[in-house]
Amino acid sequence: MAAKLTNSTKSELFAAKKRHVTSYDVAQYAGVSQSAVSRCFKSGGSVSRKMRERVMKAVEELGYQPNAIARGLITRRSNMVAVIVSNLNYYPEVLSQLSARFTERGVHVLLFTLDQESDVGRILDQVWQYQVDGVVVAAHLAPGEIEAFNKRNVPLVFYNRAYSDIPVSSVSCDQVEGQRILVNLLVKNGSHKSFAVVSGPADSVVSMQRTREAMNRLHDLGIEDIVQVSGDYSYDSGRDAVDRVMAQRGALPDAIICANDMMAFGCMDQLRYGYDLRVPEDVSVVGFDGVRAAGWSSFNLVTIQQPVDRMAEAAVQMLLDRVENYVLPPEKRIFSGVLRNGATIRN
Amino acid sequence: MAAKLTNSTKSELFAAKKRHVTSYDVAQYAGVSQSAVSRCFKSGGSVSRKMRERVMKAVEELGYQPNAIARGLITRRSNMVAVIVSNLNYYPEVLSQLSARFTERGVHVLLFTLDQESDVGRILDQVWQYQVDGVVVAAHLAPGEIEAFNKRNVPLVFYNRAYSDIPVSSVSCDQVEGQRILVNLLVKNGSHKSFAVVSGPADSVVSMQRTREAMNRLHDLGIEDIVQVSGDYSYDSGRDAVDRVMAQRGALPDAIICANDMMAFGCMDQLRYGYDLRVPEDVSVVGFDGVRAAGWSSFNLVTIQQPVDRMAEAAVQMLLDRVENYVLPPEKRIFSGVLRNGATIRN
Repeated sequence: MAAKLTNSTKSELFAAKKRHVTSYDVAQYAGVSQSAVSRCFKSGGSVSRKMRERVMKAVEELGYQPNAIARGLITRRSNMVAVIVSNLNYYPEVLSQLSARFTERGVHVLLFTLDQESDVGRILDQVWQYQVDGVVVAAHLAPGEIEAFNKRNVPLVFYNRAYSDIPVSSVSCDQVEGQRILVNLLVKNGSHKSFAVVSGPADSVVSMQRTREAMNRLHDLGIEDIVQVSGDYSYDSGRDAVDRVMAQRGALPDAIICANDMMAFGCMDQLRYGYDLRVPEDVSVVGFDGVRAAGWSSFNLVTIQQPVDRMAEAAVQMLLDRVENYVLPPEKRIFSGVLRNGATIRN
Repeated sequence: MAAKLTNSTKSELFAAKKRHVTSYDVAQYAGVSQSAVSRCFKSGGSVSRKMRERVMKAVEELGYQPNAIARGLITRRSNMVAVIVSNLNYYPEVLSQLSARFTERGVHVLLFTLDQESDVGRILDQVWQYQVDGVVVAAHLAPGEIEAFNKRNVPLVFYNRAYSDIPVSSVSCDQVEGQRILVNLLVKNGSHKSFAVVSGPADSVVSMQRTREAMNRLHDLGIEDIVQVSGDYSYDSGRDAVDRVMAQRGALPDAIICANDMMAFGCMDQLRYGYDLRVPEDVSVVGFDGVRAAGWSSFNLVTIQQPVDRMAEAAVQMLLDRVENYVLPPEKRIFSGVLRNGATIRN
């Protein structure tokens, strides 16, 4: 046993190694058991007044900060959720909404950003290691990866990725309905007979849904003059798409349907500044998402506005409900997008 | 003591409560001490071959995932850093760069987003609770708040917030130099005699530095016709700024200097679509940051491009160096911004 030290010597010794004082240090310093220290910090922990005073004195003198993570090991809650997002640069509103809403509720966000949706598999191991209470995923998972969540009983909510054949919770914007509204609008005003459809990244299910619905709906309405080119959601790929449509058709179509707003901006800029054409007088353009810049006067884009605030709120609430009660059955919530009436469709 | 159970019964019992299998569960299942389990997962931990086999069998059967957080309690490292950002919507590139670079190195990011820079004090308590290894802060801290980091020996690196009178690490873009380049460019070409300067949020030190330097430099170069109005970094506040300049001066100045790009876009759109003026023929506009949209043909903005990739890399490296070795002295790294030659200054 160590020679008896005065409290001030002990305090100095602790100060010298002061980085991350632990409950073990507090117990040693107070001369009590570690479990007694734990009980002082646990709600409803049984501990005598004298013991509590002794521990709290040590806590104060050592500058001990009760450790949320260590507490998590006791309650088996980390009070952390993981948020996995791709395309952060194209749609930062989603992350800032999710982050703000979790923070409001005292839940912390461990962030994983992906360059490409298909990278998600590689980071799941890291997610498991932190034993987060739940995960919001705005990327595509393979069925086996979803199964891994179930196996570990980690609640999972998809953001804008819905699975029709797997029972898993999700919050989405109705891509099909939104796309149909846009196509109807273009076709029914009678001045658009030829179309280009610009899809997003090949590994994005959302982009795929939007593009497929646009193609289907155009066909259903009897339109036959359609070219399809692929982009990657970026502004630059929207510009390129115009050149590629031009190369394929030899002329520009009446309207260009883009799988997101960012590509629509690139498309509009290339039409205006690359081809010296007017939008919408020469070519109409529509997007999807309703990002902030859609409302800028330079674009004033016709698009489908996703109700990001309501969707983020729903995702946060659904996840935390399932952290509280793991056996809640999966639920899919599908929000209608709202048509943003801009000035990029000609009469 | 519990009656002896067969392994398959035990395995089922554990499966029933399988959420978050802990090292305690593994120890119980294997019939060994918890410290023996820990030694199996600690690099260099001394443990017999037989013991390791026994533990690993339990690990496999229970689906135990060695817990990064629990391991952190042993090494006193959480392998997590906090990133505190404000203005996420105006400048998502910073966060996505920081996040990608930490992730590359196997370090995880606990994200705190702020609506307003001045909210930062309220979240520091939450940061302490997670005992992160270090923090990157892209917001302003009061001296007492910085002192709280020192007291806890938590390494801290500021992103784009430098303190001249406090020894603390920071990575910044040279706001003063950048602003001076822009003002020189405008004044020296001889066609700008009257100016408006649009500042950002009142609690942003970066905005304050940019605006102050613009005012000082204009005065130094003998310009006297200057109005100053304040915005909040948003596109809408850039639009409003034009109206307020108009109200104050009764006419628009030759050039408008905005404290960030987003306000410059709002400004340009209001000049073009609100007043039917041409940029730059009627009014020149400059921004600061070099966000992606500055390169869009609709804007093609003259601005100072912050070298975000190099700045993010420096911030990550400086922080992790200090996590390794806490006694490294503070360091300030100041990167020059790069002039982006657009088409928003008239000849």
